[in-house]
Amino acid sequence: MAKEKDQFVNQIADIETDFPRWYTDVVIKTKLVDYGPVKGTMVIRPYGYAIWENIQHELDKRFKATGHQNAYFPLLIPYSFMTREAEHVEGFAPEVAVVTVGGGETLAEPLVIRPTSETVFGEMYSKWLQSYRDLPILINQWANVVRWEKTTRPFLRTSEFLWQEGHTAHATEEEAMEETMKMLGVYKEFAETCLAIPVFTGRKTEKEKFAGAVATFGMEAMMHDGKSLQAGTSHYLGQNFAKAFNIQFLDKDGTHKYAYTSSWGVSTRLIGALIMSHGDARGLILPPVVAPVQAILVPIAAKKEGVLDAVAALKSKLVAAGIRAESDLTDNSPGWKFNEWEMKGVPLRIELGPRDIEAGKMVLVRRDTHEKVEAPLENAAETVQKLLAEIQSDLLETAKKRKEARVVTAESVEELLKGVEGGNFVKAGWCGCRECEDKIKEQTAASARVIVEDEHAEKCACCGRPAKHVVLFARAY
Amino acid sequence: MAKEKDQFVNQIADIETDFPRWYTDVVIKTKLVDYGPVKGTMVIRPYGYAIWENIQHELDKRFKATGHQNAYFPLLIPYSFMTREAEHVEGFAPEVAVVTVGGGETLAEPLVIRPTSETVFGEMYSKWLQSYRDLPILINQWANVVRWEKTTRPFLRTSEFLWQEGHTAHATEEEAMEETMKMLGVYKEFAETCLAIPVFTGRKTEKEKFAGAVATFGMEAMMHDGKSLQAGTSHYLGQNFAKAFNIQFLDKDGTHKYAYTSSWGVSTRLIGALIMSHGDARGLILPPVVAPVQAILVPIAAKKEGVLDAVAALKSKLVAAGIRAESDLTDNSPGWKFNEWEMKGVPLRIELGPRDIEAGKMVLVRRDTHEKVEAPLENAAETVQKLLAEIQSDLLETAKKRKEARVVTAESVEELLKGVEGGNFVKAGWCGCRECEDKIKEQTAASARVIVEDEHAEKCACCGRPAKHVVLFARAY
Repeated sequence: MAKEKDQFVNQIADIETDFPRWYTDVVIKTKLVDYGPVKGTMVIRPYGYAIWENIQHELDKRFKATGHQNAYFPLLIPYSFMTREAEHVEGFAPEVAVVTVGGGETLAEPLVIRPTSETVFGEMYSKWLQSYRDLPILINQWANVVRWEKTTRPFLRTSEFLWQEGHTAHATEEEAMEETMKMLGVYKEFAETCLAIPVFTGRKTEKEKFAGAVATFGMEAMMHDGKSLQAGTSHYLGQNFAKAFNIQFLDKDGTHKYAYTSSWGVSTRLIGALIMSHGDARGLILPPVVAPVQAILVPIAAKKEGVLDAVAALKSKLVAAGIRAESDLTDNSPGWKFNEWEMKGVPLRIELGPRDIEAGKMVLVRRDTHEKVEAPLENAAETVQKLLAEIQSDLLETAKKRKEARVVTAESVEELLKGVEGGNFVKAGWCGCRECEDKIKEQTAASARVIVEDEHAEKCACCGRPAKHVVLFARAY
Repeated sequence: MAKEKDQFVNQIADIETDFPRWYTDVVIKTKLVDYGPVKGTMVIRPYGYAIWENIQHELDKRFKATGHQNAYFPLLIPYSFMTREAEHVEGFAPEVAVVTVGGGETLAEPLVIRPTSETVFGEMYSKWLQSYRDLPILINQWANVVRWEKTTRPFLRTSEFLWQEGHTAHATEEEAMEETMKMLGVYKEFAETCLAIPVFTGRKTEKEKFAGAVATFGMEAMMHDGKSLQAGTSHYLGQNFAKAFNIQFLDKDGTHKYAYTSSWGVSTRLIGALIMSHGDARGLILPPVVAPVQAILVPIAAKKEGVLDAVAALKSKLVAAGIRAESDLTDNSPGWKFNEWEMKGVPLRIELGPRDIEAGKMVLVRRDTHEKVEAPLENAAETVQKLLAEIQSDLLETAKKRKEARVVTAESVEELLKGVEGGNFVKAGWCGCRECEDKIKEQTAASARVIVEDEHAEKCACCGRPAKHVVLFARAY
């Protein structure tokens, strides 16, 4: 068994010394994902897609509970739409895929595959919106988007990815801003509750904001290596797109006004966040709420009379209680199975052998702590549910501790560099000018992740002039 | 109120004399769908998308119960993939959208937006499949596809549509064929149980089969006007794609063999089938299982004390019981609301006014029969659930009766023409040759929908030679 364990662990690079390789090894070997035939694309395999389905399920519930409805808008957008909002086209034009031929003929106007859908939502909202009574419009869509990327990595940055994009229109600035912040809050609560990932939230700098937004708010998660991953964004778009697409309504006072809009999205990147947040030397560790398999049953001495029956009975009991339980009935040895399911990050392993069955008990092994406990088969579902809930909350606690322990402050670019090289997020004063932001990036490879609210610094860590904001800097994915 | 009703009914064309206009009027005015900015594309609005979500929910359950897993494969396919299967490229090349520019540069190889994904699944399966132990591979994906169409109609034929496509690989011909037929059966059961649409199923002729398949099996539904709509297909692909993409496995006997594959799909077309199957002069009639709103509560004399409270209480009770109930609290008159929700096809209307509340009852009006009954407020959820189940099964019965009443037989092309002109499906003998099939299409505008099993005819209705099959002919969407 020791040998088998080594075989498995040796399949993946060392997490501490070669995290990027570890990541690639883990996503491929656990069959979460594979490379698609077109460079930069990915195939999300059933094990990875099941995580996405669980994420969708949890988020969709929250979107609907906050009054949003789903819809579906077209994939193809006239190229001219992109150019109507000046910042938007500047940001997205360089990375679009362009359709020039359809049905065997060259198209009169080239079409872009949506990199994001503010423009086509804008066009339709301008058609649908008549009166203040039609507001707010609160629509979300689950869709694929394409952004031509030079350097790609599965889940983190791919030419095509899956996401949701909410697009809303409101009568006033206040309401649109309230929506923007509400959805940022939904994302944060979801990340903590479901993904067990604590996040920093806050406003982005001008440099880092969405092309076409008045303000972008992001949530940033700390990965195992101390780098940051932007896990979701919520944009206050002001009247930028309303003016570009003529989204107007007749207000109570009898005048026509432009609406205020917002947009917000998270993507299959969240799967990358999960992997890099909780994984360890042995592979994935998946939080129970989104794990495709929450408990894996491994029969011990499977050929002995009664073992397979007992495993089947226990599995049925767990499944009936709503637990995503599976049993591994392959010919592999128990040791092989332990290692395989550990690598796949299943939160809980349940071993059941002749002696356990005789004693009316089962052996439970936690993936996160490797803790092994025995428990009676009676009330098994309740025991498992309780343990899964514990694992979920412990994962969040562990991640929270790392998040808190790894934030340092800096008063100079040198200190900032030292901080990020030590695998930290670094808080530093910033004068607010683009030059300093660029210089910090250049010298430390760290970027401004979010502006920290309610904190103050005296001086800009870069130029020494009075600081306007405290900014959270980190190297980022 | 009579005037209001006229206003509503006048908004839509007469269903008997101008069914195509009726269809367009209904889908647009009930806000199921709108035209997208790119010709031939559609925006599926929240009311339409909610139907799709219900369809997805019901189908997805069935796919998983039959052992399938979901995954996601890339949108963009190298053009060269299309050409590997000779029939496939012939069928699909004329209608693909082609990406020639990505990230500002002309691509070395043009990419097609998937019109269907046999090729990219084939490529990945050839990579993943090693041994007979890996079989069967049973994967489905929910995705968008693009087919460049000249004449388009919302839901029925659009340049982009949403669908699911199952792709499976098996060790033997028998298993692949069994899968093909099993999924056709799943579709048929789903169509009858959830959509209340009875269907004809059977094998397609060579002319009508999927480009690249050995055999295609389809399900055909009869629409209000007697035309047929192909509502789903299941393809037995033999080793065609396995050979084109080298999908091989090491079998138990130690030799490498090509796998046998199948594929099967249904799309947002099903929403078109729903509309044209059940709708009437007043608009949509939606079967409760897939209706976004199953019961609409309309307060009568809403300003009278206690009415709104009673409506809210009843709504909560129904929602708690799992019924998709909503209340219309707008300023519109009750009559206006009745007509609007009738047009939107909500299966059940519940009226609640001061006198009803005093008497402890509610008024229930069925959308399909306009039948009006009173029922006690006590056990309201149970009453409503029972009535919804009744509506569901009555809709199926009504559709079944039409389906059975409108099938005639023909022994000549003239009879066939008369049959389809009378709004019927026509069974006729066929010699099996393409020339007769083409001639029948040319002279009657009817095509071979499916080959009827276990029925025999003496002569081909077209050429008079001995008949090989009985074929169900109809004009089709």
